[in-house]
Amino acid sequence: MAPRGARRDRVQIQRVSPTVDCGRYAATAVVGDDVAVGADIFREGHEALAAVVRYRGPVGGWLETPMELDSNDRWYGTVPVDRVGQWRFGVIAWTDHFASWLDGLRKKHGAGQTDLSLELEEGALLLERRPQPNKRVAVALAETAGFLRSDADVSAKVAAAGAPELLMLLAHHPERLDAATSRPELPLWVDRERARFSAWYEMFPRSEGATWPSEASGRRPRSGTFADAAKRLPAIAAMGFDVLYLPPIHPIGTTNRKGSGGPRDLHPGPHDPGVPWAIGSAAGGHDAVHPDLGTLEDFDAFVAAAGDNGLEVALDFAIQCSPDHPWVSEHPEWFRHRADGTIAYAENPPKKYEDIYPIDFDTDDREGLWSELRRVLDFWLARGIRIFRVDNPHTKALPFWEWLIAEVRAEHPETIFLAEAFTRPKMMQTLAKLGFNQSYTYFAWRNSKRELTDYLTELAHGEMADYFQPNFWPNTPDILTEYLQHGGPPAFRIRLVLAALLSPSYGIYSGYELSENTPLEPGSEEYWESEKYRYRPRDWDAPGSLAPYIARINQIRAEHRALHGLRNIWFHHVGNEALLCFSKVAKHRTDPILVIANLDPDQPQEATTWLDLWQLGLEHAGPFEAHDLLTDTTFIWHGPQNYVRLDPHVEPAHVLRLRAL
Amino acid sequence: MAPRGARRDRVQIQRVSPTVDCGRYAATAVVGDDVAVGADIFREGHEALAAVVRYRGPVGGWLETPMELDSNDRWYGTVPVDRVGQWRFGVIAWTDHFASWLDGLRKKHGAGQTDLSLELEEGALLLERRPQPNKRVAVALAETAGFLRSDADVSAKVAAAGAPELLMLLAHHPERLDAATSRPELPLWVDRERARFSAWYEMFPRSEGATWPSEASGRRPRSGTFADAAKRLPAIAAMGFDVLYLPPIHPIGTTNRKGSGGPRDLHPGPHDPGVPWAIGSAAGGHDAVHPDLGTLEDFDAFVAAAGDNGLEVALDFAIQCSPDHPWVSEHPEWFRHRADGTIAYAENPPKKYEDIYPIDFDTDDREGLWSELRRVLDFWLARGIRIFRVDNPHTKALPFWEWLIAEVRAEHPETIFLAEAFTRPKMMQTLAKLGFNQSYTYFAWRNSKRELTDYLTELAHGEMADYFQPNFWPNTPDILTEYLQHGGPPAFRIRLVLAALLSPSYGIYSGYELSENTPLEPGSEEYWESEKYRYRPRDWDAPGSLAPYIARINQIRAEHRALHGLRNIWFHHVGNEALLCFSKVAKHRTDPILVIANLDPDQPQEATTWLDLWQLGLEHAGPFEAHDLLTDTTFIWHGPQNYVRLDPHVEPAHVLRLRAL
Repeated sequence: MAPRGARRDRVQIQRVSPTVDCGRYAATAVVGDDVAVGADIFREGHEALAAVVRYRGPVGGWLETPMELDSNDRWYGTVPVDRVGQWRFGVIAWTDHFASWLDGLRKKHGAGQTDLSLELEEGALLLERRPQPNKRVAVALAETAGFLRSDADVSAKVAAAGAPELLMLLAHHPERLDAATSRPELPLWVDRERARFSAWYEMFPRSEGATWPSEASGRRPRSGTFADAAKRLPAIAAMGFDVLYLPPIHPIGTTNRKGSGGPRDLHPGPHDPGVPWAIGSAAGGHDAVHPDLGTLEDFDAFVAAAGDNGLEVALDFAIQCSPDHPWVSEHPEWFRHRADGTIAYAENPPKKYEDIYPIDFDTDDREGLWSELRRVLDFWLARGIRIFRVDNPHTKALPFWEWLIAEVRAEHPETIFLAEAFTRPKMMQTLAKLGFNQSYTYFAWRNSKRELTDYLTELAHGEMADYFQPNFWPNTPDILTEYLQHGGPPAFRIRLVLAALLSPSYGIYSGYELSENTPLEPGSEEYWESEKYRYRPRDWDAPGSLAPYIARINQIRAEHRALHGLRNIWFHHVGNEALLCFSKVAKHRTDPILVIANLDPDQPQEATTWLDLWQLGLEHAGPFEAHDLLTDTTFIWHGPQNYVRLDPHVEPAHVLRLRAL
Repeated sequence: MAPRGARRDRVQIQRVSPTVDCGRYAATAVVGDDVAVGADIFREGHEALAAVVRYRGPVGGWLETPMELDSNDRWYGTVPVDRVGQWRFGVIAWTDHFASWLDGLRKKHGAGQTDLSLELEEGALLLERRPQPNKRVAVALAETAGFLRSDADVSAKVAAAGAPELLMLLAHHPERLDAATSRPELPLWVDRERARFSAWYEMFPRSEGATWPSEASGRRPRSGTFADAAKRLPAIAAMGFDVLYLPPIHPIGTTNRKGSGGPRDLHPGPHDPGVPWAIGSAAGGHDAVHPDLGTLEDFDAFVAAAGDNGLEVALDFAIQCSPDHPWVSEHPEWFRHRADGTIAYAENPPKKYEDIYPIDFDTDDREGLWSELRRVLDFWLARGIRIFRVDNPHTKALPFWEWLIAEVRAEHPETIFLAEAFTRPKMMQTLAKLGFNQSYTYFAWRNSKRELTDYLTELAHGEMADYFQPNFWPNTPDILTEYLQHGGPPAFRIRLVLAALLSPSYGIYSGYELSENTPLEPGSEEYWESEKYRYRPRDWDAPGSLAPYIARINQIRAEHRALHGLRNIWFHHVGNEALLCFSKVAKHRTDPILVIANLDPDQPQEATTWLDLWQLGLEHAGPFEAHDLLTDTTFIWHGPQNYVRLDPHVEPAHVLRLRAL
C-alpha cells in the first residue's frame, strides 16, 4: 500500500491563462505585447508562496519571469514577446519557506514578543540550507545567519532578515524544494503586429482603367490591367491603408458563367467578364493570372509598386473551381461525382450554383489534393505574398486548415490568413483556433449601441480575446447593409469611424469612399451593377468623396498606440441610446483616446457623458483637455459629466485625445 | 510531405460538459440523477450530424444515449446514473449522410422540382452501402432502395425515404464513417443520494445527562455517556434529521488543556473536560473513545441505536494531536521539531495554540503517516461509519486528501466526506474537486437578499455546480453569527428556513432549537459558556423550543423531491429588499415549491411578487392554488403578481406548494 499520490504536487496551480480549449489550441499575441499569464496558485495552511512564468520563444532556451499575487489566489506574470513564431509557457510555483518564516518573525516582533532566539536560530538554519551557487552567495548567507545568532539587538536582526539586498539575493537564487509545474505546457502563437493592427482596402484591379459601356452603346467592355491598377496605388496609400486585398486574379471559367446582370443572370453577353471566384479556364487555375490583367511579371510589378507605396498585397484563396479549371480534367477524383457520372456543382437546396464546382474534401486522394493546395500557396508565397484572405473557409474540412496553416507557418511564420467566414459563432471561433490570424465578423450588422457594446465586450473581454482577432468591414462586394443603403454619406462616416476605431483591424471595399449605396433590389444586400459581374470604373474625383476623411481617420489610428489594441476598449455611459462612447488607452493608461459617435445618421443627438475617469488614467486629475483630432478643436472638461452634441450631417463623431491639465 | 493532419477528426467536438479542470477532476452526481452531458458539435458545410454520449458505470460495459441539438451548435444527451462509483463518459459524433441527403431531397421536392431521379438513385445507393448487421435490416434497406428506383410517384418516394420506421432502423444501425470521439474520456463520480440531500444534527454526547455545577457549588462536573446520549436519539429523529454528527469522541489531552472559561482560559480547573479537538491521551488516540463516554462497545451500541432511529452517525476526522497523543512518543518524526528539539505547537502568529500539535505533512516518513491515517479511517469504517466530517482539511496537504479519498472509495464508495473548510474560495473548490462530497460554505454570513441570491446563483448555476455540494449551517460550535445574536427566535426560524430550503444539505448545532444566542463577548462569534470547553446539559423541554418547527421543515423537505436538488433553484422578483422569493421544482417542472422569506427578524415586510411562471410549470395556467405547507392555509393566486406580507414574530416565511386549478 504505497501512497501513490505521495509525489503529487503540493502547490496547486490551476486555471492557467491564456489557455484555449485546455491547450489543444494556441492563444495568440503580436510582437511587442506584454502577455499577461495568470494562474490560481495556493496550498494548504499559511505558508508564503512564490511563482514564475516559464516560457520560451521560437529560438533560445527557457526563460522565467516572476509572478505576483493579484487577489483571490490569482497570480500574474508578464511575458514580453519579441519574435514571430511558436512560443510555449507554463507556471512554476513553490513554497517560500524563508518568506513564511520572515512573516511569522515580523508578526511576533510586532506583537511585542521579546524572546525570539529560537525563531532567529531557525531563520539562520533556513539560510544555511539554501542553494549556494557561488561563493558570493555563500558568504552573504553565512554572514546573515551569523548575525541572526549574534548578540545584536533583536530589532536589528529582524531588519537584517528582511533587508532588501538579502531578499533580492534569495529571489535570484530561489530554493524550490516542492516546486510544482503546470501541465500541460501551453502554446502561444505570436504574429507580426499587422495580424492585429491593419487597415485593408479591397479593389478589383480589372475595374481600374476599364471600359464598361452603357447597355445601348454596343461597345465592347475592356478590362483594366495590373498596370492600370498600379496608377491607383498612390491614392490608396494616401488614404492611409496598409493592406491591399485583391479578389481572385486568376482566369475565369466560361461554362455557366454568370452575366453582368447579377447573380440570377444565366445568359451572359459575349464580353461579360464573369465572376472572379469562378476560378480556372484553359488559361490556367489557381497559379495563373487572368490574361486580361496581364502576366505574372505584371503582377510582380504591381506587388512591387504597392510595396513602394507602403501597401502589402493580400490575395484571395478560394478553394473552388469553374467547370473549366484544369483540375477538373486532371484530377476528376477531387470532385464529387453524382450517380450519373456528372460532377456535382455547388448547391444549397433548392438553390444551385452551376458555375462552381466545390472541391470534395472526402476524396480518396486526400494527400494529392492537400499537397496541391499547399503548392498553390507556396507558389504565391514564393512571389512574396504573405497575406491571404480565405474565401469561405467554413465550407472546407477543418483538419485541412489546421494542417495547411501549420505547414506554411513552419517556413513563413509571418504569413497572415484572414478567414472570410460569415457563419455560426462556434465555427468562426474554431477557424481562429486552427490558426486563422484574423476573421471577418458580424460587425456589418451590429448597429445599435446595445449590439455594438455587447459584441465588442464579447470580442475584447471574453474568452475569444485570447485567440480571435476581428477585422471589421462596414461593406464588402457581397454586403451592402441596410444601414448604408438608407443612411447616406453620414452613415458611411459613422460606420467608418466605428470600424476603424472599435477594431484594430478593419477594411473597406472600394466605392465606400464614394458612398455607393444602391442595392440590386429592395431587401437585398447585393450591389446594383455589382462589380462581381462586370467592370466598374469609378470617378474617384467625384465631389463628396470621403477619401480625405478616411485619410484623417487612418492617420489618427497610426499616430495613437491606444488604437492598435482591442482588449483596451472601455465603454462609458452616455445618456442617449443613439450615442456610443468608448475609450482606448495605451500601456499604463497613457494616451487616452475617447470616441463619442452618433449612431443616428439622420438627426443630431445630444447627451451628457458619464466617464469612468480611472479607465482614462484621469482619476486624480482636475480639469482636463479634450482635443478633437477630427476637427482640431479643444474643449476643457471637468470630471465625468460633459455635454456633447453631434450632428451627423456636420461631423458624426468626436475623436478626443484627453490630457490632464 | 504526407499531410499529417489527414486523420484528424472531421467533426469538431468541443467544450464537453460537465468537465472539471479539463478532466483532471471528476464531476459529481448522485444516484437517480439524469446527468445532462453537453458538447459543441459541428463541421464544415451543411451536412447533418448525429451524436451520442458514450458512458460506462462502475460495472458493466460501454453504453450509449442519443444527443440532440439544442441551439447554437450545442448538443445534449442524458446519462441516467443508477449506481454509486466511478463513471466515465465521452461524446461520439459523425456525419449523417442519409439525413443530409433526405434534407436536400425534401427541400427540392418542396420547391417543386419534379425530376428527382438522380437524387433518388443517390439515396438508394446510400441505403445499399449501409452496414447490414442482419438479414432483416438488409431486406428493409434493399426494399426501400428498390422503391426509390421504382416508377412510383415521386411524392410517395420522398415519403418512403423519410418514413419513421426507416429512420428508426437507420438510427439503430448507424453508419459512422467519420466518427469523432471527444478526448479525454471524462470522469463522473456518482454518490449515494445522501451526499447531496441530508439534514445534519451536531451534538456533543458528553453533554447529555452531564452535570455542570455553578461556579460556586464546588461540585464536580460529570460527563454524559453514549448511553445517556442514546436517550436523546428519538427526539432528534422526531425532528426529522438523518445524519447525527459527533465532534471528536476520543480521549482528550491534559497538557496545556484549555479551561472551561473558553479559548483564552489557560488555567483549567481539575475537572474541566478540555476541548474534544485536542485529541489523544494515555487512554489512546484517534482509534480510541474517551473513557468518560464509555467503551467501544458502548459506541457501537449508540451507533446501532441511532440507526434504529433512522439516524446515520458521522464522526469527526481531525488530524491533530494533543501533546499527550500516543503518536507524539511513538512517531515524533510526524511532528515538526524546532531548533531546540521541542515539537512545534499550532500557531497563527502572533496567536499560539499550545494544546495542539499539528501533523507535519513534510515529514520524511510520509508513507508511514499516510498509512496510519488511513488505518484510523479503516478502523471506523470497520465499525460501520460511512460519514466523516473532516476538520480543517485546508490545513493539510492536498495530495494526501486526493489519495486518501480514492483509497477509501475503492473499498467503500458510499463513504461521504464533509469538508469543514471556512477559507478562501479556490481552496474550498479544490477540496471538492479532490473528492470531498460535501462542503461547509459561507452561508452563515450571507444575510441580505443580494448576498443570498449571488451566492446561490454561483453554487447552483456556476461552474461549481458540477462538483461542489454545499451544506448550509446557520450555526456551529464555532459560529454564532451576529444575525442570530441580535435577531432572537425569529432570526433562528428565518435562518433555518433558508438553510433547509435553499440547500439540499444543511445542519444545525444543538442548542439552535433553543435559540441559544449569547456570545462570549461583543463582536465575538464564540458562544458564552461554550460547549467546546465544558459540559452543557440543556432543558430540551424549555418553552419556545423550535423543535416542532424544525420537524415540520424537515417533513416538508422529505415529502417534496423539488427540495432535494440545488440546480433547480430559481429566484423570482419581489419588490422589497427584505423579502427573498425563490422556487424549486422536481423533474419536468412538477411539484413546484415557492418560498418567500422575510429576511428582517424585527419588522413585518410586505410586497408584491413577480413570479416567472414558466419556471414553475404554470405558464399556461389560469388561477392557481398556493398552499402554505407551514400554516396549512390555501390562497388562490392569479398570474405573476401576488401580494404577500410576513410578520417575523408570527411566521417569517411562506412555503407554498403551487398547483394549477
